[in-house]
Amino acid sequence: ADAGLTDIFLPYNILGRAKLERLKALHMRVTLSVTADSVETIDGLAATFTDAGNPLPVLVECDTGMGRCGVQTAGEAVGLARQIDTAKGLVFGGLMTYPAAGRAAEAEAWLAGARQALAACGLACARISSGGTPDMWRSGDDSVVTEYRPGTYIYLDRYQVAKGVGSLDDCALSVLSTVVSHPTRTRAILDAGSKALSSDTLGLADFGELLGVAGARVTGLSEEHGTVTLSGDGKLRIGERVRVVPDHCCVVTNLFNEVNLIDGETVLETLPVAARGRMG
Amino acid sequence: ADAGLTDIFLPYNILGRAKLERLKALHMRVTLSVTADSVETIDGLAATFTDAGNPLPVLVECDTGMGRCGVQTAGEAVGLARQIDTAKGLVFGGLMTYPAAGRAAEAEAWLAGARQALAACGLACARISSGGTPDMWRSGDDSVVTEYRPGTYIYLDRYQVAKGVGSLDDCALSVLSTVVSHPTRTRAILDAGSKALSSDTLGLADFGELLGVAGARVTGLSEEHGTVTLSGDGKLRIGERVRVVPDHCCVVTNLFNEVNLIDGETVLETLPVAARGRMG
Repeated sequence: ADAGLTDIFLPYNILGRAKLERLKALHMRVTLSVTADSVETIDGLAATFTDAGNPLPVLVECDTGMGRCGVQTAGEAVGLARQIDTAKGLVFGGLMTYPAAGRAAEAEAWLAGARQALAACGLACARISSGGTPDMWRSGDDSVVTEYRPGTYIYLDRYQVAKGVGSLDDCALSVLSTVVSHPTRTRAILDAGSKALSSDTLGLADFGELLGVAGARVTGLSEEHGTVTLSGDGKLRIGERVRVVPDHCCVVTNLFNEVNLIDGETVLETLPVAARGRMG
Repeated sequence: ADAGLTDIFLPYNILGRAKLERLKALHMRVTLSVTADSVETIDGLAATFTDAGNPLPVLVECDTGMGRCGVQTAGEAVGLARQIDTAKGLVFGGLMTYPAAGRAAEAEAWLAGARQALAACGLACARISSGGTPDMWRSGDDSVVTEYRPGTYIYLDRYQVAKGVGSLDDCALSVLSTVVSHPTRTRAILDAGSKALSSDTLGLADFGELLGVAGARVTGLSEEHGTVTLSGDGKLRIGERVRVVPDHCCVVTNLFNEVNLIDGETVLETLPVAARGRMG
Protein backbone atom coordinates (compact mmCIF):
# COMPACT_ATOMS: atom_id res chain seq x y z
CA ALA A 1 0.00 0.00 0.00
CA ASP A 2 2.92 2.34 0.74
CA ALA A 3 4.04 1.78 -2.86
CA GLY A 4 0.72 3.07 -4.19
CA LEU A 5 -1.27 -0.14 -4.67
CA THR A 6 -4.97 0.62 -4.22
CA ASP A 7 -6.53 -2.83 -4.74
CA ILE A 8 -4.90 -5.65 -2.76
CA PHE A 9 -5.90 -9.31 -2.65
CA LEU A 10 -4.15 -11.26 0.11
CA PRO A 11 -4.75 -14.92 -0.81
CA TYR A 12 -3.69 -16.14 2.63
CA ASN A 13 -5.21 -17.13 5.97
CA ILE A 14 -4.58 -14.19 8.29
CA LEU A 15 -4.51 -15.31 11.92
CA GLY A 16 -3.68 -13.75 15.26
CA ARG A 17 -4.61 -10.47 16.91
CA ALA A 18 -1.59 -8.44 15.67
CA LYS A 19 -1.97 -9.40 12.01
CA LEU A 20 -5.74 -8.96 12.08
CA GLU A 21 -5.34 -5.43 13.46
CA ARG A 22 -2.84 -4.60 10.68
CA LEU A 23 -5.28 -6.07 8.16
CA LYS A 24 -8.05 -3.87 9.52
CA ALA A 25 -5.88 -0.76 9.22
CA LEU A 26 -5.09 -1.74 5.61
CA HIS A 27 -8.81 -2.16 4.87
CA MET A 28 -9.28 1.54 5.75
CA ARG A 29 -6.72 2.56 3.11
CA VAL A 30 -7.29 0.32 0.07
CA THR A 31 -9.77 -2.02 -1.63
CA LEU A 32 -8.93 -5.23 0.19
CA SER A 33 -9.91 -8.89 -0.02
CA VAL A 34 -8.57 -12.07 1.61
CA THR A 35 -9.11 -15.82 1.71
CA ALA A 36 -9.93 -18.39 4.38
CA ASP A 37 -10.06 -22.18 4.50
CA SER A 38 -11.11 -22.79 8.11
CA VAL A 39 -13.69 -21.90 10.72
CA GLU A 40 -10.88 -20.56 12.92
CA THR A 41 -9.67 -18.10 10.27
CA ILE A 42 -13.20 -16.82 9.62
CA ASP A 43 -13.85 -16.52 13.37
CA GLY A 44 -10.82 -14.24 13.64
CA LEU A 45 -11.88 -12.14 10.64
CA ALA A 46 -15.48 -11.90 11.88
CA ALA A 47 -14.34 -10.71 15.32
CA THR A 48 -12.13 -8.03 13.77
CA PHE A 49 -14.28 -6.79 10.88
CA THR A 50 -17.71 -5.77 12.17
CA ASP A 51 -18.73 -2.81 9.99
CA ALA A 52 -21.61 -3.93 7.77
CA GLY A 53 -21.27 -0.66 5.83
CA ASN A 54 -17.74 -1.56 4.66
CA PRO A 55 -17.52 -5.34 4.75
CA LEU A 56 -14.36 -7.33 3.92
CA PRO A 57 -14.70 -9.71 0.95
CA VAL A 58 -13.50 -13.20 1.90
CA LEU A 59 -12.95 -15.90 -0.72
CA VAL A 60 -12.84 -19.58 0.24
CA GLU A 61 -9.56 -21.28 -0.65
CA CYS A 62 -9.96 -24.65 -2.38
CA ASP A 63 -7.45 -27.50 -2.71
CA THR A 64 -7.97 -28.51 -6.33
CA GLY A 65 -5.06 -30.95 -6.42
CA MET A 66 -2.04 -29.00 -5.18
CA GLY A 67 -2.17 -30.60 -1.72
CA ARG A 68 -1.33 -27.41 0.17
CA CYS A 69 -3.98 -25.15 1.78
CA GLY A 70 -7.68 -25.22 0.96
CA VAL A 71 -10.89 -27.07 1.69
CA GLN A 72 -11.00 -30.64 0.42
CA THR A 73 -14.63 -30.79 -0.77
CA ALA A 74 -17.33 -28.57 -2.27
CA GLY A 75 -19.40 -29.31 0.84
CA GLU A 76 -16.73 -27.74 3.05
CA ALA A 77 -16.61 -24.72 0.73
CA VAL A 78 -20.38 -24.26 1.13
CA GLY A 79 -20.07 -24.49 4.92
CA LEU A 80 -17.40 -21.79 5.10
CA ALA A 81 -19.21 -19.58 2.56
CA ARG A 82 -22.30 -19.68 4.81
CA GLN A 83 -20.18 -18.75 7.83
CA ILE A 84 -18.73 -15.77 5.93
CA ASP A 85 -22.18 -14.81 4.61
CA THR A 86 -23.67 -14.64 8.10
CA ALA A 87 -20.82 -12.56 9.61
CA LYS A 88 -21.90 -8.90 9.78
CA GLY A 89 -18.59 -7.35 8.66
CA LEU A 90 -17.69 -9.95 6.02
CA VAL A 91 -19.04 -10.71 2.56
CA PHE A 92 -18.57 -13.96 0.65
CA GLY A 93 -16.30 -13.09 -2.29
CA GLY A 94 -16.04 -16.36 -4.21
CA LEU A 95 -13.42 -19.09 -4.59
CA MET A 96 -9.63 -19.09 -4.77
CA THR A 97 -7.21 -21.84 -5.72
CA TYR A 98 -3.61 -22.46 -6.66
CA PRO A 99 -3.83 -25.44 -9.00
CA ALA A 100 -1.19 -28.14 -9.26
CA ALA A 101 1.12 -27.52 -12.23
CA GLY A 102 -0.22 -29.08 -15.41
CA ARG A 103 -3.54 -30.04 -13.82
CA ALA A 104 -5.62 -27.01 -14.79
CA ALA A 105 -8.49 -29.16 -16.15
CA GLU A 106 -8.86 -30.90 -12.79
CA ALA A 107 -8.99 -27.51 -11.05
CA GLU A 108 -11.64 -26.27 -13.52
CA ALA A 109 -13.85 -29.27 -12.79
CA TRP A 110 -13.44 -28.86 -9.02
CA LEU A 111 -14.29 -25.15 -9.13
CA ALA A 112 -17.27 -25.63 -11.47
CA GLY A 113 -18.68 -28.24 -9.09
CA ALA A 114 -18.20 -25.99 -6.05
CA ARG A 115 -19.77 -23.03 -7.86
CA GLN A 116 -22.80 -25.18 -8.62
CA ALA A 117 -23.10 -26.39 -5.01
CA LEU A 118 -22.87 -22.79 -3.78
CA ALA A 119 -25.48 -21.59 -6.30
CA ALA A 120 -27.84 -24.31 -5.07
CA CYS A 121 -27.61 -22.65 -1.64
CA GLY A 122 -28.15 -19.18 -3.04
CA LEU A 123 -24.50 -18.14 -2.78
CA ALA A 124 -23.05 -16.49 -5.92
CA CYS A 125 -19.33 -16.49 -6.69
CA ALA A 126 -18.36 -12.91 -7.51
CA ARG A 127 -14.82 -14.04 -8.27
CA ILE A 128 -13.09 -17.33 -9.00
CA SER A 129 -9.37 -16.71 -8.72
CA SER A 130 -6.67 -19.08 -9.97
CA GLY A 131 -2.89 -18.86 -10.42
CA GLY A 132 0.31 -20.40 -11.71
CA THR A 133 2.27 -19.02 -14.64
CA PRO A 134 2.89 -22.19 -16.73
CA ASP A 135 -0.81 -22.99 -17.11
CA MET A 136 -2.19 -19.48 -17.58
CA TRP A 137 -1.72 -19.80 -21.34
CA ARG A 138 -4.18 -22.70 -21.30
CA SER A 139 -6.86 -20.72 -19.41
CA GLY A 140 -9.32 -20.07 -22.24
CA ASP A 141 -12.74 -18.52 -22.78
CA ASP A 142 -14.58 -21.56 -21.46
CA SER A 143 -12.91 -21.30 -18.03
CA VAL A 144 -14.87 -20.74 -14.81
CA VAL A 145 -11.90 -18.67 -13.61
CA THR A 146 -12.58 -14.91 -13.52
CA GLU A 147 -9.12 -13.70 -12.48
CA TYR A 148 -5.61 -15.07 -12.74
CA ARG A 149 -2.59 -14.54 -10.43
CA PRO A 150 0.61 -15.29 -12.37
CA GLY A 151 3.62 -14.75 -10.09
CA THR A 152 6.58 -15.72 -12.23
CA TYR A 153 5.03 -14.11 -15.31
CA ILE A 154 6.75 -10.76 -14.69
CA TYR A 155 10.26 -12.20 -15.20
CA LEU A 156 10.04 -15.87 -16.28
CA ASP A 157 12.85 -18.24 -15.30
CA ARG A 158 14.44 -21.59 -16.18
CA TYR A 159 11.54 -23.50 -14.64
CA GLN A 160 9.09 -21.74 -16.96
CA VAL A 161 11.37 -22.44 -19.93
CA ALA A 162 11.43 -26.11 -18.88
CA LYS A 163 7.61 -26.02 -18.82
CA GLY A 164 7.55 -24.73 -22.39
CA VAL A 165 6.79 -21.10 -21.57
CA GLY A 166 9.14 -19.11 -23.80
CA SER A 167 12.89 -19.41 -24.22
CA LEU A 168 15.89 -18.42 -22.14
CA ASP A 169 15.98 -15.11 -24.04
CA ASP A 170 12.51 -14.33 -22.65
CA CYS A 171 13.81 -14.51 -19.05
CA ALA A 172 14.10 -10.94 -17.82
CA LEU A 173 15.84 -11.66 -14.53
CA SER A 174 19.47 -12.67 -14.22
CA VAL A 175 22.04 -12.58 -11.44
CA LEU A 176 25.24 -10.73 -12.37
CA SER A 177 28.21 -12.50 -10.84
CA THR A 178 31.98 -12.77 -11.11
CA VAL A 179 34.16 -15.80 -11.88
CA VAL A 180 36.35 -15.88 -8.76
CA SER A 181 38.19 -19.16 -9.26
CA HIS A 182 38.93 -21.68 -12.02
CA PRO A 183 40.59 -24.61 -10.25
CA THR A 184 40.34 -27.09 -13.13
CA ARG A 185 39.69 -26.89 -16.87
CA THR A 186 36.01 -27.86 -16.49
CA ARG A 187 35.28 -26.28 -13.08
CA ALA A 188 34.84 -22.56 -12.45
CA ILE A 189 33.54 -20.90 -9.30
CA LEU A 190 31.19 -17.89 -9.19
CA ASP A 191 30.63 -15.46 -6.34
CA ALA A 192 26.91 -16.38 -6.50
CA GLY A 193 25.95 -19.22 -4.15
CA SER A 194 22.77 -20.29 -2.42
CA LYS A 195 22.46 -16.84 -0.82
CA ALA A 196 22.15 -15.34 -4.33
CA LEU A 197 20.57 -18.05 -6.50
CA SER A 198 18.67 -19.94 -3.73
CA SER A 199 18.69 -23.74 -3.48
CA ASP A 200 15.14 -23.87 -4.83
CA THR A 201 15.42 -25.72 -8.16
CA LEU A 202 11.72 -26.60 -8.51
CA GLY A 203 12.96 -30.02 -9.54
CA LEU A 204 15.46 -28.97 -12.21
CA ALA A 205 18.78 -30.83 -12.37
CA ASP A 206 21.02 -27.82 -11.67
CA PHE A 207 20.84 -24.31 -10.24
CA GLY A 208 21.16 -21.96 -13.18
CA GLU A 209 22.50 -21.41 -16.64
CA LEU A 210 25.09 -18.90 -17.86
CA LEU A 211 23.93 -16.61 -20.65
CA GLY A 212 26.18 -16.65 -23.69
CA VAL A 213 28.50 -19.42 -22.48
CA ALA A 214 27.68 -22.63 -24.32
CA GLY A 215 27.08 -25.60 -22.05
CA ALA A 216 27.87 -23.76 -18.80
CA ARG A 217 25.59 -24.86 -15.94
CA VAL A 218 25.66 -24.06 -12.22
CA THR A 219 25.89 -27.62 -10.93
CA GLY A 220 26.59 -26.97 -7.26
CA LEU A 221 25.98 -24.28 -4.66
CA SER A 222 27.39 -23.52 -1.29
CA GLU A 223 26.53 -20.32 0.50
CA GLU A 224 28.87 -17.88 -1.25
CA HIS A 225 30.09 -20.08 -4.11
CA GLY A 226 28.46 -21.42 -7.24
CA THR A 227 30.20 -24.26 -9.06
CA VAL A 228 30.02 -24.02 -12.84
CA THR A 229 30.66 -27.14 -14.85
CA LEU A 230 31.94 -26.29 -18.30
CA SER A 231 31.22 -28.59 -21.17
CA GLY A 232 31.33 -28.07 -24.89
CA ASP A 233 33.00 -24.91 -26.12
CA GLY A 234 32.24 -22.69 -23.12
CA LYS A 235 35.22 -20.85 -21.65
CA LEU A 236 35.51 -18.51 -18.68
CA ARG A 237 38.22 -16.16 -17.43
CA ILE A 238 38.92 -15.39 -13.76
CA GLY A 239 37.47 -11.96 -13.02
CA GLU A 240 34.96 -12.18 -15.88
CA ARG A 241 31.39 -11.12 -15.11
CA VAL A 242 28.61 -13.44 -16.20
CA ARG A 243 24.81 -13.45 -16.08
CA VAL A 244 23.10 -16.45 -14.51
CA VAL A 245 19.44 -17.20 -15.26
CA PRO A 246 18.16 -18.82 -12.07
CA ASP A 247 15.67 -21.69 -11.82
CA HIS A 248 13.10 -19.81 -9.72
CA CYS A 249 13.01 -16.03 -9.97
CA CYS A 250 10.59 -15.46 -7.05
CA VAL A 251 12.90 -16.74 -4.32
CA VAL A 252 15.92 -15.06 -5.93
CA THR A 253 14.23 -11.65 -5.83
CA ASN A 254 13.62 -12.19 -2.11
CA LEU A 255 17.38 -12.54 -1.51
CA PHE A 256 18.25 -9.05 -2.75
CA ASN A 257 17.59 -5.54 -1.49
CA GLU A 258 17.41 -4.00 -4.95
CA VAL A 259 16.65 -4.91 -8.54
CA ASN A 260 18.38 -3.13 -11.42
CA LEU A 261 16.28 -2.64 -14.54
CA ILE A 262 18.69 -2.92 -17.45
CA ASP A 263 18.79 -2.41 -21.20
CA GLY A 264 21.84 -4.33 -22.42
CA GLU A 265 24.58 -3.16 -20.06
CA THR A 266 22.85 0.10 -19.10
CA VAL A 267 21.08 0.37 -15.76
CA LEU A 268 17.85 2.30 -16.42
CA GLU A 269 16.54 2.29 -12.86
CA THR A 270 17.18 0.67 -9.48
CA LEU A 271 14.11 -0.45 -7.55
CA PRO A 272 13.99 -1.52 -3.90
CA VAL A 273 12.61 -5.00 -3.10
CA ALA A 274 10.22 -3.61 -0.50
CA ALA A 275 8.65 -6.92 0.55
CA ARG A 276 11.93 -8.79 1.03
CA GLY A 277 12.39 -10.31 4.47
CA ARG A 278 8.96 -9.04 5.61
CA MET A 279 6.93 -12.17 6.03
CA GLY A 280 6.02 -11.43 9.66
CA ALA B 1 34.16 -3.37 10.66
CA ASP B 2 31.23 -1.03 11.35
CA ALA B 3 30.11 -3.50 14.04
CA GLY B 4 33.45 -3.17 15.85
CA LEU B 5 35.41 -6.12 14.43
CA THR B 6 39.13 -5.27 14.45
CA ASP B 7 40.64 -8.44 12.95
CA ILE B 8 39.00 -9.65 9.76
CA PHE B 9 39.97 -12.64 7.61
CA LEU B 10 38.21 -12.70 4.24
CA PRO B 11 38.79 -16.25 2.95
CA TYR B 12 37.74 -15.34 -0.58
CA ASN B 13 39.24 -14.30 -3.90
CA ILE B 14 38.64 -10.56 -4.18
CA LEU B 15 38.57 -9.46 -7.82
CA GLY B 16 37.75 -6.28 -9.70
CA ARG B 17 38.68 -2.65 -9.25
CA ALA B 18 35.69 -1.64 -7.08
CA LYS B 19 36.07 -4.49 -4.59
CA LEU B 20 39.84 -4.11 -4.40
CA GLU B 21 39.46 -0.40 -3.57
CA ARG B 22 36.97 -1.28 -0.81
CA LEU B 23 39.39 -3.90 0.46
CA LYS B 24 42.18 -1.34 0.55
CA ALA B 25 40.04 1.08 2.55
CA LEU B 26 39.22 -1.73 4.99
CA HIS B 27 42.94 -2.52 5.36
CA MET B 28 43.45 1.04 6.71
CA ARG B 29 40.89 0.43 9.46
CA VAL B 30 41.44 -3.14 10.73
CA THR B 31 43.89 -6.05 10.82
CA LEU B 32 43.04 -7.69 7.51
CA SER B 33 43.99 -10.85 5.65
CA VAL B 34 42.62 -12.57 2.53
CA THR B 35 43.15 -15.64 0.35
CA ALA B 36 43.95 -16.28 -3.31
CA ASP B 37 44.04 -19.33 -5.52
CA SER B 38 45.09 -17.86 -8.87
CA VAL B 39 47.69 -15.67 -10.53
CA GLU B 40 44.89 -13.31 -11.61
CA THR B 41 43.71 -12.75 -8.03
CA ILE B 42 47.25 -12.07 -6.78
CA ASP B 43 47.89 -9.73 -9.73
CA GLY B 44 44.89 -7.65 -8.66
CA LEU B 45 45.96 -7.60 -5.01
CA ALA B 46 49.57 -6.75 -5.91
CA ALA B 47 48.45 -3.83 -8.09
CA THR B 48 46.23 -2.46 -5.31
CA PHE B 49 48.40 -3.03 -2.23
CA THR B 50 51.82 -1.48 -2.73
CA ASP B 51 52.86 -0.27 0.73
CA ALA B 52 55.75 -2.45 1.93
CA GLY B 53 55.42 -0.85 5.37
CA ASN B 54 51.89 -2.21 5.84
CA PRO B 55 51.62 -5.29 3.66
CA LEU B 56 48.46 -7.39 3.24
CA PRO B 57 48.78 -11.03 4.37
CA VAL B 58 47.55 -13.37 1.64
CA LEU B 59 46.98 -17.08 2.29
CA VAL B 60 46.84 -19.59 -0.56
CA GLU B 61 43.54 -21.48 -0.76
CA CYS B 62 43.93 -25.24 -1.21
CA ASP B 63 41.39 -27.76 -2.52
CA THR B 64 41.91 -30.63 -0.08
CA GLY B 65 38.98 -32.69 -1.35
CA MET B 66 35.96 -30.36 -1.28
CA GLY B 67 36.10 -29.73 -5.04
CA ARG B 68 35.28 -26.03 -4.83
CA CYS B 69 37.96 -23.29 -4.92
CA GLY B 70 41.65 -23.84 -4.27
CA VAL B 71 44.84 -24.98 -5.94
CA GLN B 72 44.92 -28.65 -6.89
CA THR B 73 48.55 -29.47 -6.00
CA ALA B 74 51.26 -28.48 -3.51
CA GLY B 75 53.31 -27.35 -6.51
CA GLU B 76 50.67 -24.81 -7.46
CA ALA B 77 50.59 -23.61 -3.84
CA VAL B 78 54.36 -23.03 -3.93
CA GLY B 79 54.04 -21.09 -7.19
CA LEU B 80 51.39 -18.75 -5.83
CA ALA B 81 53.21 -18.35 -2.50
CA ARG B 82 56.30 -17.20 -4.43
CA GLN B 83 54.20 -14.71 -6.41
CA ILE B 84 52.77 -13.30 -3.16
CA ASP B 85 56.21 -13.26 -1.54
CA THR B 86 57.72 -11.17 -4.32
CA ALA B 87 54.91 -8.58 -4.40
CA LYS B 88 56.00 -5.46 -2.50
CA GLY B 89 52.70 -4.77 -0.70
CA LEU B 90 51.77 -8.41 0.01
CA VAL B 91 53.10 -10.98 2.46
CA PHE B 92 52.61 -14.76 2.22
CA GLY B 93 50.35 -15.65 5.17
CA GLY B 94 50.07 -19.43 4.93
CA LEU B 95 47.43 -21.89 3.72
CA MET B 96 43.65 -21.97 3.88
CA THR B 97 41.18 -24.75 3.14
CA TYR B 98 37.59 -25.77 3.60
CA PRO B 99 37.79 -29.56 3.88
CA ALA B 100 35.13 -31.92 2.59
CA ALA B 101 32.81 -33.06 5.40
CA GLY B 102 34.13 -36.13 7.17
CA ARG B 103 37.45 -36.07 5.29
CA ALA B 104 39.57 -34.10 7.78
CA ALA B 105 42.41 -36.66 7.68
CA GLU B 106 42.75 -36.23 3.93
CA ALA B 107 42.93 -32.45 4.38
CA GLU B 108 45.57 -32.80 7.11
CA ALA B 109 47.79 -34.93 4.82
CA TRP B 110 47.37 -32.47 1.93
CA LEU B 111 48.24 -29.46 4.09
CA ALA B 112 51.21 -31.19 5.75
CA GLY B 113 52.62 -32.01 2.32
CA ALA B 114 52.17 -28.47 1.06
CA ARG B 115 53.75 -27.02 4.21
CA GLN B 116 56.76 -29.25 3.62
CA ALA B 117 57.04 -28.24 -0.05
CA LEU B 118 56.86 -24.57 0.95
CA ALA B 119 59.48 -25.01 3.69
CA ALA B 120 61.82 -26.57 1.14
CA CYS B 121 61.59 -23.28 -0.76
CA GLY B 122 62.17 -21.19 2.35
CA LEU B 123 58.51 -20.16 2.71
CA ALA B 124 57.10 -20.54 6.24
CA CYS B 125 53.34 -20.94 6.90
CA ALA B 126 52.41 -18.44 9.58
CA ARG B 127 48.84 -19.77 9.60
CA ILE B 128 47.10 -22.89 8.36
CA SER B 129 43.37 -22.19 8.49
CA SER B 130 40.66 -24.85 8.22
CA GLY B 131 36.90 -24.89 8.74
CA GLY B 132 33.67 -26.87 8.95
CA THR B 133 31.70 -27.35 12.16
CA PRO B 134 31.07 -31.14 12.13
CA ASP B 135 34.76 -32.04 11.99
CA MET B 136 36.16 -29.39 14.34
CA TRP B 137 35.68 -31.77 17.27
CA ARG B 138 38.14 -34.16 15.59
CA SER B 139 40.83 -31.51 15.14
CA GLY B 140 43.30 -32.59 17.81
CA ASP B 141 46.71 -31.59 19.13
CA ASP B 142 48.55 -33.38 16.33
CA SER B 143 46.89 -31.25 13.64
CA VAL B 144 48.86 -28.98 11.28
CA VAL B 145 45.90 -26.58 11.45
CA THR B 146 46.59 -23.42 13.48
CA GLU B 147 43.15 -21.80 13.30
CA TYR B 148 39.62 -23.07 12.76
CA ARG B 149 36.63 -21.30 11.16
CA PRO B 150 33.43 -22.99 12.37
CA GLY B 151 30.41 -21.25 10.79
CA THR B 152 27.43 -23.24 12.02
CA TYR B 153 28.98 -23.63 15.48
CA ILE B 154 27.29 -20.50 16.83
CA TYR B 155 23.77 -21.95 16.46
CA LEU B 156 23.97 -25.59 15.30
CA ASP B 157 21.13 -26.99 13.18
CA ARG B 158 19.51 -30.25 12.02
CA TYR B 159 22.40 -30.99 9.67
CA GLN B 160 24.86 -30.85 12.58
CA VAL B 161 22.58 -33.08 14.64
CA ALA B 162 22.49 -35.52 11.72
CA LYS B 163 26.32 -35.44 11.72
CA GLY B 164 26.38 -36.38 15.40
CA VAL B 165 27.17 -32.91 16.76
CA GLY B 166 24.83 -32.49 19.73
CA SER B 167 21.07 -32.95 19.91
CA LEU B 168 18.07 -30.95 18.74
CA ASP B 169 18.01 -29.26 22.17
CA ASP B 170 21.48 -27.87 21.46
CA CYS B 171 20.19 -26.00 18.37
CA ALA B 172 19.94 -22.36 19.36
CA LEU B 173 18.20 -21.09 16.22
CA SER B 174 14.54 -21.72 15.40
CA VAL B 175 11.98 -20.06 13.17
CA LEU B 176 8.80 -19.03 14.97
CA SER B 177 5.81 -19.62 12.72
CA THR B 178 2.04 -19.96 12.80
CA VAL B 179 -0.17 -22.87 11.75
CA VAL B 180 -2.34 -21.17 9.11
CA SER B 181 -4.22 -24.16 7.70
CA HIS B 182 -5.00 -27.77 8.57
CA PRO B 183 -6.65 -29.22 5.48
CA THR B 184 -6.44 -32.88 6.48
CA ARG B 185 -5.78 -34.81 9.68
CA THR B 186 -2.13 -35.43 8.83
CA ARG B 187 -1.36 -32.21 6.88
CA ALA B 188 -0.90 -28.79 8.46
CA ILE B 189 0.43 -25.66 6.76
CA LEU B 190 2.80 -23.12 8.34
CA ASP B 191 3.39 -19.51 7.33
CA ALA B 192 7.09 -20.41 6.95
CA GLY B 193 8.05 -21.46 3.43
CA SER B 194 11.22 -21.39 1.37
CA LYS B 195 11.55 -17.64 1.98
CA ALA B 196 11.89 -18.37 5.72
CA LEU B 197 13.42 -21.85 5.99
CA SER B 198 15.32 -21.86 2.64
CA SER B 199 15.26 -24.88 0.30
CA ASP B 200 18.81 -25.77 1.34
CA THR B 201 18.52 -29.17 3.07
CA LEU B 202 22.21 -30.13 2.86
CA GLY B 203 20.96 -33.54 1.81
CA LEU B 204 18.44 -34.13 4.61
CA ALA B 205 15.11 -35.74 3.72
CA ASP B 206 12.90 -32.84 4.83
CA PHE B 207 13.10 -29.12 5.59
CA GLY B 208 12.79 -28.82 9.35
CA GLU B 209 11.44 -30.29 12.53
CA LEU B 210 8.86 -28.88 14.95
CA LEU B 211 10.05 -28.54 18.53
CA GLY B 212 7.79 -30.25 21.03
CA VAL B 213 5.46 -31.85 18.47
CA ALA B 214 6.24 -35.56 18.21
CA GLY B 215 6.83 -36.76 14.65
CA ALA B 216 6.06 -33.40 13.01
CA ARG B 217 8.33 -32.73 10.03
CA VAL B 218 8.28 -29.98 7.39
CA THR B 219 8.01 -32.21 4.33
CA GLY B 220 7.34 -29.60 1.66
CA LEU B 221 7.96 -25.93 1.01
CA SER B 222 6.57 -23.40 -1.36
CA GLU B 223 7.47 -19.76 -1.06
CA GLU B 224 5.14 -18.69 1.75
CA HIS B 225 3.90 -22.11 2.90
CA GLY B 226 5.51 -24.98 4.75
CA THR B 227 3.74 -28.34 4.66
CA VAL B 228 3.90 -30.26 7.95
CA THR B 229 3.24 -33.98 7.85
CA LEU B 230 1.95 -35.19 11.18
CA SER B 231 2.64 -38.71 12.28
CA GLY B 232 2.53 -40.37 15.64
CA ASP B 233 0.84 -38.43 18.43
CA GLY B 234 1.67 -34.91 17.23
CA LYS B 235 -1.30 -32.53 17.03
CA LEU B 236 -1.56 -28.92 15.88
CA ARG B 237 -4.25 -26.26 16.15
CA ILE B 238 -4.93 -23.56 13.55
CA GLY B 239 -3.45 -20.31 14.86
CA GLU B 240 -0.94 -22.11 17.09
CA ARG B 241 2.63 -20.83 17.05
CA VAL B 242 5.40 -23.39 16.64
CA ARG B 243 9.20 -23.36 16.52
CA VAL B 244 10.89 -24.98 13.54
CA VAL B 245 14.54 -26.06 13.74
CA PRO B 246 15.84 -25.62 10.17
CA ASP B 247 18.29 -27.89 8.35
CA HIS B 248 20.87 -25.16 7.66
CA CYS B 249 21.01 -22.17 10.00
CA CYS B 250 23.43 -20.09 7.88
CA VAL B 251 21.12 -19.60 4.91
CA VAL B 252 18.11 -19.08 7.20
CA THR B 253 19.82 -16.20 9.01
CA ASN B 254 20.45 -14.58 5.63
CA LEU B 255 16.66 -14.50 4.95
CA PHE B 256 15.81 -12.30 7.92
CA ASN B 257 16.50 -8.68 8.85
CA GLU B 258 16.70 -9.36 12.57
CA VAL B 259 17.43 -12.14 15.06
CA ASN B 260 15.71 -12.26 18.44
CA LEU B 261 17.81 -13.61 21.30
CA ILE B 262 15.38 -15.46 23.56
CA ASP B 263 15.29 -17.13 26.95
CA GLY B 264 12.23 -19.39 26.89
CA GLU B 265 9.49 -17.09 25.59
CA THR B 266 11.24 -13.86 26.61
CA VAL B 267 13.02 -11.76 24.00
CA LEU B 268 16.27 -10.57 25.63
CA GLU B 269 17.58 -8.59 22.68
CA THR B 270 16.94 -8.03 18.96
CA LEU B 271 20.01 -7.91 16.73
CA PRO B 272 20.13 -6.75 13.10
CA VAL B 273 21.48 -9.19 10.49
CA ALA B 274 23.90 -6.60 9.11
CA ALA B 275 25.45 -8.78 6.40
CA ARG B 276 22.15 -10.05 4.96
CA GLY B 277 21.68 -9.37 1.25
CA ARG B 278 25.10 -7.69 1.00
CA MET B 279 27.13 -10.07 -1.10
CA GLY B 280 28.07 -7.46 -3.70
